[in-house]
Amino acid sequence: MVKKITQLEKNIGLKFNNIDLLRQAMVHRSYINENKDFPLDHNERLEFLGDAVLELVVTDHLFLKYPNPEGELTNWRSALVNSTMLSEKSQQLGINDYLFLSRGEAKDIGKAREIILANAFEALIGAIYLDQGYEKAREFITDKIISELPRILELGLYLDPKSKLQELVQEKFSITPGYQVIDEWGPDHAKKFKVAVLVEDKKIGEGEGPSKQEAQVSAAKDALLDDKWKK
Amino acid sequence: MVKKITQLEKNIGLKFNNIDLLRQAMVHRSYINENKDFPLDHNERLEFLGDAVLELVVTDHLFLKYPNPEGELTNWRSALVNSTMLSEKSQQLGINDYLFLSRGEAKDIGKAREIILANAFEALIGAIYLDQGYEKAREFITDKIISELPRILELGLYLDPKSKLQELVQEKFSITPGYQVIDEWGPDHAKKFKVAVLVEDKKIGEGEGPSKQEAQVSAAKDALLDDKWKK
Repeated sequence: MVKKITQLEKNIGLKFNNIDLLRQAMVHRSYINENKDFPLDHNERLEFLGDAVLELVVTDHLFLKYPNPEGELTNWRSALVNSTMLSEKSQQLGINDYLFLSRGEAKDIGKAREIILANAFEALIGAIYLDQGYEKAREFITDKIISELPRILELGLYLDPKSKLQELVQEKFSITPGYQVIDEWGPDHAKKFKVAVLVEDKKIGEGEGPSKQEAQVSAAKDALLDDKWKK
Repeated sequence: MVKKITQLEKNIGLKFNNIDLLRQAMVHRSYINENKDFPLDHNERLEFLGDAVLELVVTDHLFLKYPNPEGELTNWRSALVNSTMLSEKSQQLGINDYLFLSRGEAKDIGKAREIILANAFEALIGAIYLDQGYEKAREFITDKIISELPRILELGLYLDPKSKLQELVQEKFSITPGYQVIDEWGPDHAKKFKVAVLVEDKKIGEGEGPSKQEAQVSAAKDALLDDKWKK
């Protein structure tokens, strides 16, 4: 059961003039297919708009605040604006409880859901922009997304996580980290892997993913975020 | 010899507070390499900013003016914002006469120059946005880029040109257009092709390019823009 949209409005901390814009941002295409008489369209047009607003707000901030070359700013922007980050932020706002999904989509909580959550976040930005204007959208993006920048820069998360971890481990211990599959499960079409990343025989992080490579990246991120082994 | 920048300011129809921003938008990376003591940086950071401004202005316009699905709006946007269109607009403003280029780059007037012109156009948008604000940048983009939209929609230029031409020729003559290489020249690493597009034995367009495929696309565009054979 989809929760009342006014609760989401409170989570976001804004009062919409047209609450249907916020509601529409939560509507996945699959829901419309199953509910032809639903009064609102799905959220893809709002996502198209929100994506461009997000891009300008982040670009403008990076340009004005940092004198770095364009190539570096582009990497930082990619680390801020990508489906993993946007779906995390979406979940933090509780958007999972407000999505309008088909019965089929509602059961899928893997990669497909991550994309749906990220797209709903962009659609939400589109809705805020339309209803409240650029400045309110900028404040929202600054609060939710740009606030992650110091952590990303400090941890070097704009680099590929495996390269970054290798750099760090070599610097500290003069050896290369190793990866090991410690579990795998699920049917062939939906296999999952759990991978540990090790320094000599000590586990410094672990991660899961639908492929060994993705599980390794996730394990590397986990190790980067953990400070204990670095001491 | 690079022309006086104040003349470009007149072409654009704006009075800059900081004329160095406009000047910097014209500076290609290659010029800095050859002139290490030049007081300004090259234009890549301005291009990074201008690209995001251009994207939001065009996206916002398409969203508000047309109720079409996101997929169509994305195609229309690609037809408005691409290096061919931006370099054409750059040339119409006379930007060729204001570019700061290395001696090597100054000699190249092919595809490399097209990219340089398109990038300078985006950097110019970045400079206008910084110096004059979003609204002036929006007016500039509306005047130079969005004004092309009716023609693009009318001629179906948002479709792949070869598909669009085939559709049109089949509708009118119930046959399929054919392509024929009518000339080729240049050394192997810089080959050029000239291609004609024919309806039965009548040439309805021609185009050049660094591959047969690109020359065909150019010939199809040429035919689409010519009204004579359609009557």
